[in-house]
Amino acid sequence: MDKAKFTKNMTGDRYQVDDLFFSRLMDTARTKVIPYQWEALNDRIPDAEKSHAVANFKIAAGLEKGEFAGCVFQDSDLAKWIEAAAYSLMWHKDEKLEKELDDIIDVIEKAQMPDGYLDTYYIIGGPEKRWTNLKDNHELYCAGHFLEAAVAYYQATGKRKLLDVLLRLVDHIDARFGPEEGKLKGYPGHEVIEMALVKLYEITGEEKHLKLAQYFIDQRGQSPLYFKEETERNGNGFYWKNSYFQYQYYQAGKPVREQTEAVGHAVRAGYLYSGMAAVARAAQDESLLEACHRMWDSIVNRRMYITGQIGSADYGEAFTFDYDLPNDTAYAETCAGLSLVFFAQRMLQIEQKGEYADVMERALYNGTISGMSLDGTRFFYVNPLEVLPEACEKDQIHRHVKVERQKWFGCACCPPNLARTMTSIASYAAASREDAYFQHLYLSGTAKAKLNGVEAEIQLTSGYPWKGDIQVEIRPEKPVAFTYAIRIPGWCQHYELKVCGAPFAGEVKDGYAYITREWQPGDRVELTLDMPVETVYANTAVREDIGKVAVQRGPIVFCLEECDNGRDLHKVYLPEQPEFEAKFEEGLLEGVVTVACGGYRLEGEESGALYTTRKPAKFVPAQLKFIPYYAWTNRTPGEMMVWIRQR
Amino acid sequence: MDKAKFTKNMTGDRYQVDDLFFSRLMDTARTKVIPYQWEALNDRIPDAEKSHAVANFKIAAGLEKGEFAGCVFQDSDLAKWIEAAAYSLMWHKDEKLEKELDDIIDVIEKAQMPDGYLDTYYIIGGPEKRWTNLKDNHELYCAGHFLEAAVAYYQATGKRKLLDVLLRLVDHIDARFGPEEGKLKGYPGHEVIEMALVKLYEITGEEKHLKLAQYFIDQRGQSPLYFKEETERNGNGFYWKNSYFQYQYYQAGKPVREQTEAVGHAVRAGYLYSGMAAVARAAQDESLLEACHRMWDSIVNRRMYITGQIGSADYGEAFTFDYDLPNDTAYAETCAGLSLVFFAQRMLQIEQKGEYADVMERALYNGTISGMSLDGTRFFYVNPLEVLPEACEKDQIHRHVKVERQKWFGCACCPPNLARTMTSIASYAAASREDAYFQHLYLSGTAKAKLNGVEAEIQLTSGYPWKGDIQVEIRPEKPVAFTYAIRIPGWCQHYELKVCGAPFAGEVKDGYAYITREWQPGDRVELTLDMPVETVYANTAVREDIGKVAVQRGPIVFCLEECDNGRDLHKVYLPEQPEFEAKFEEGLLEGVVTVACGGYRLEGEESGALYTTRKPAKFVPAQLKFIPYYAWTNRTPGEMMVWIRQR
Repeated sequence: MDKAKFTKNMTGDRYQVDDLFFSRLMDTARTKVIPYQWEALNDRIPDAEKSHAVANFKIAAGLEKGEFAGCVFQDSDLAKWIEAAAYSLMWHKDEKLEKELDDIIDVIEKAQMPDGYLDTYYIIGGPEKRWTNLKDNHELYCAGHFLEAAVAYYQATGKRKLLDVLLRLVDHIDARFGPEEGKLKGYPGHEVIEMALVKLYEITGEEKHLKLAQYFIDQRGQSPLYFKEETERNGNGFYWKNSYFQYQYYQAGKPVREQTEAVGHAVRAGYLYSGMAAVARAAQDESLLEACHRMWDSIVNRRMYITGQIGSADYGEAFTFDYDLPNDTAYAETCAGLSLVFFAQRMLQIEQKGEYADVMERALYNGTISGMSLDGTRFFYVNPLEVLPEACEKDQIHRHVKVERQKWFGCACCPPNLARTMTSIASYAAASREDAYFQHLYLSGTAKAKLNGVEAEIQLTSGYPWKGDIQVEIRPEKPVAFTYAIRIPGWCQHYELKVCGAPFAGEVKDGYAYITREWQPGDRVELTLDMPVETVYANTAVREDIGKVAVQRGPIVFCLEECDNGRDLHKVYLPEQPEFEAKFEEGLLEGVVTVACGGYRLEGEESGALYTTRKPAKFVPAQLKFIPYYAWTNRTPGEMMVWIRQR
Repeated sequence: MDKAKFTKNMTGDRYQVDDLFFSRLMDTARTKVIPYQWEALNDRIPDAEKSHAVANFKIAAGLEKGEFAGCVFQDSDLAKWIEAAAYSLMWHKDEKLEKELDDIIDVIEKAQMPDGYLDTYYIIGGPEKRWTNLKDNHELYCAGHFLEAAVAYYQATGKRKLLDVLLRLVDHIDARFGPEEGKLKGYPGHEVIEMALVKLYEITGEEKHLKLAQYFIDQRGQSPLYFKEETERNGNGFYWKNSYFQYQYYQAGKPVREQTEAVGHAVRAGYLYSGMAAVARAAQDESLLEACHRMWDSIVNRRMYITGQIGSADYGEAFTFDYDLPNDTAYAETCAGLSLVFFAQRMLQIEQKGEYADVMERALYNGTISGMSLDGTRFFYVNPLEVLPEACEKDQIHRHVKVERQKWFGCACCPPNLARTMTSIASYAAASREDAYFQHLYLSGTAKAKLNGVEAEIQLTSGYPWKGDIQVEIRPEKPVAFTYAIRIPGWCQHYELKVCGAPFAGEVKDGYAYITREWQPGDRVELTLDMPVETVYANTAVREDIGKVAVQRGPIVFCLEECDNGRDLHKVYLPEQPEFEAKFEEGLLEGVVTVACGGYRLEGEESGALYTTRKPAKFVPAQLKFIPYYAWTNRTPGEMMVWIRQR
């Protein structure tokens, strides 16, 4: 690995986004989700299950009396809120919000134990029991999320208080975990601290922070198995005793470098792989990168939904096996799709390959943002690709699938996760290194980057994802040579690329066009992506999708909804050569492109027999209307279907 | 209802079966299952989970010391064994077996409490708690099975000891349950005693026996709900508190005459409906018969697998909703298919309609006998219509589906249920009334019936189900006029019927040809059923089967197995006009007809992408081989599939 080739993600203060698509989501996160969650964290929402998260910290800080309440990982909800809010401050100053943050950070500081420990579940419930159940009790997980929050808030405001709290916590953890004699040989049951420690390392430059991340990654799954010993030593339960997973639920069945497939709880897995990629980059660890490649390959070539989602099963919220991608019983947790985004983002920092950005885009435009209603008030954990309301009500294996997004949850992992991703969307859109700027996503807005020593503005203007027109204007403070690398999406079969009006004839490699020249202020790059509506086929190994197609246009995956197409969507067939017509509907679903197509319904005889040797009556012509998948069930709830039968 | 039109089922001593198909199953039950189960009930099988059933009775009888062990309904295993063995004695004398039966009946008698109560769980564990949890503790269920056993043993041997034990138990129950002041207003959590009491009533003629059955049926689901009151009164748990079912798991959500669809635990439901039909006939209760019609319609027109199986879901081993018939996650318990046979048999006694016999035949030749290996040593609870071994191992929602039949279970409801059905198969094949003999199934053998006062032998000879040739010779002791009614199967589109060599020109009504004449000894009826291989379509409302066909020949449903057709059966397609070739293979699977057919496999590119806009490569011709469904996984275990995609 050549460290000089690593890229650094944009942050919101360096990429002022003004995007047709994501600005709405960013604003929804900022103006709806963050304020609502703050009320929720403070137990001020009438008729909602209480969060207790802020109360727990006040109790731990000695400011209030009471018992810990909520999930064992309740602290992380507050952490993710702080992180989401911090990112929003990078692109939208808000004194009231910053004051709220400072106030709660004061409380957090007071809650911290003198030795640096910070987890209200144990501080309130009995610190003598801390670190006795790493497998299930999420202390390192909460620490990881607070670390991410602290880094974000420090980056957004320059204020160190939360960061200092976290540095003390990390020192506490570092003193307790590691290869040295007398230290615990453990690692988190739910990963996230690994990638968080690398973020910290990037700020502090302290090797011990990277080393701790490395330790957690390399110790995982080593023999003797820590989780097994811990369970026996402390009399902890083991929920997965009779499961297929065993310790692979926690990705701990073997050392990560020996693992060959994405396994277990999908969010944990995605976070682990993100941490592995972060460490591989920071430590220039080739063999760990190889392990990342294996996991990436396992996911995107055999275990990922077309919506960029992962986690085929409700049981364990987990991966199952290759090509097992049921549409109607999928788990596809909002957080799981996000974990894949985090993984992709970190792989892109190491290797600028379009396949990473393609997957990141697939998840960000489809199966993750589907987790939030258009008005930002309701949320999905589970993002199915096919829904029959009656099944969700009456059949247990579909009961985790909801027909409508739900109000805030008591234990709300997904909504703040989505919020923090939306408020930091700029970090996914582009990255730069000394000599080059990489445009991963076509996010309209103006970025600032120092390229070969010269500050430059890079302004992107586009109607993406509804249009394939991408105009870039590059404005260095003075003429400077660098590479502007723009992604050519994997979904695009035909495109035109012009540089200052002339057809580009340079290198296109691994999904990026590398435009290297001396840039003059006002130089323009124009990329035009053909964006026809296309039918997508799944690998024939995918049982649930054989004989079916999905409809995609650009990065957007479409679906049929009952409110447009009637009931019994399983009877709908597309013709072999569908004639699609796409149109932008401004008034629909906050403005979307819809796709119309002539198709069929396979209709049987009215009240016919259950079984018959007579062929079911006929293919009846039917006009079909597809909407973007992410926007489903924002109107009248009903059936939904992504993979459609084809004649 | 015209009572004179009711039929009476054959018994084994009146129908000596010598059938190509069922004689093997009868002999397997008699020579393998019954002896093996006797060893199992006595805990004499090395390396097998102990049954404890006999031990429990010896402890209850004071013959041994110990605690109750096994399931709360463990007694019923012994009861079903006695019943199965008793039926076998009707057609195969066996002094050793009869001695074993007499000995254990002595023990049972000793175990009975002075007041008539009989259930070892409570006799050993605390009689003061008896009748406090009708909902879950199966006392009436065990009583019902013992009642069936007692009636069978009395009919087989004329010995009254067990019958007298049961008469005392029934008196005990009758004294405790009923509408009278001071009696419990309860009914069984698991039905079976209803139909058993009708069997008893047919022997004793005592109205109180019928009345008790009527009470249990009519009290079920009445307000205030007994199960709810009982749960609150006695602090019992309610497992289905958070379920969709609620009390409908027990078919107790409302009175049975108000229920409109088959619901809840499928075996319980099937037993209830059988009891309802039995009572409707015995009591000539028109409105109860209407309720039976509704349940029948709900099952066979919307909730039954093509194999004659019921129970779409593992959760609750239960019905789900209309047209929800998943093939790979089906529960389709062996006992559930049998319960449908019992229901059909009782409906046939009331109304001689071919649709009842068609369903009974469908279940008996397909989805019930699939529950036993050809050698009678291994058993399925769950009879799926599609199996992918990797899913059964790695995905929780498929884990109830087994790739191979299992050895005897500690709590073994299905194997003895199948055994008792096989040893009493004659009772399903034919029935008679004063003036008519009904041939429901084409079981080769010789029946004896008194028809209009004259004893007649009716001998049926056939190669069924492999051949459609059915010859009947009628031998009355002297010429006598009566109706010989022979079923014309619903699956048969063309047939030829001759009576004494002349084409039959009389009435064919509701699936039966009514041949009424003065029969001379040696008169012959010849029925020839065309038995082409056919493709069967499911109602297009069945999501899992749309675009697919099943292969059927005569009453036999076929399947593809991996060992004949390779892996990835989901890639297999049948052509629109398949050319089937059926042949009998004597050496295969104890002799079966197999079906060959040219088809296709939809093969993608080798190690292709997960998603692509390129159409998956090609339909590659493939030679397909189908075997009868019931015989699957008797060779190398692997994938199996009933519903096949069609181009």
